[in-house]
Amino acid sequence: AAQGWKLIDGALEKTYTFPDFHATMAFVNAVAWIAHRENHHPDLALGFGRCTVRFNTHDVGGISVSDFFCAAAVDALLKD
Amino acid sequence: AAQGWKLIDGALEKTYTFPDFHATMAFVNAVAWIAHRENHHPDLALGFGRCTVRFNTHDVGGISVSDFFCAAAVDALLKD
Repeated sequence: AAQGWKLIDGALEKTYTFPDFHATMAFVNAVAWIAHRENHHPDLALGFGRCTVRFNTHDVGGISVSDFFCAAAVDALLKD
Repeated sequence: AAQGWKLIDGALEKTYTFPDFHATMAFVNAVAWIAHRENHHPDLALGFGRCTVRFNTHDVGGISVSDFFCAAAVDALLKD
């Protein structure tokens, strides 16, 4: 199960933190790769050392299995 | 003067739209390049076909010349 994700305003949301903007942007681009691959695109809010990822599914007006799948794929980017 | 930028909650803000996620991400990475070059990092909020850029200056608790300079540099990315 995806950890640290919260259901906020009808979307799965999690905030990741990073030491600097380079690391943040590297993460953002990795998330974009997953989004392209799965053809399922999150909303991202990012600043110097943080990125909030939000997944939801417009077609169902809420959360679908694709959201959980993509959330897990994003988490996997940060596995040791 | 930078066009289309609004002062919202103490930051210069502008939303750009794009035809797809690839174009949005290309823009995001070009903005990141400017941020690295100027060592002045915006907040970005992006989705499938849009990116909102927000510049402010924490040291002064509002807007500085760096914000206007970076706003113009971002606009210049989209010049014909």
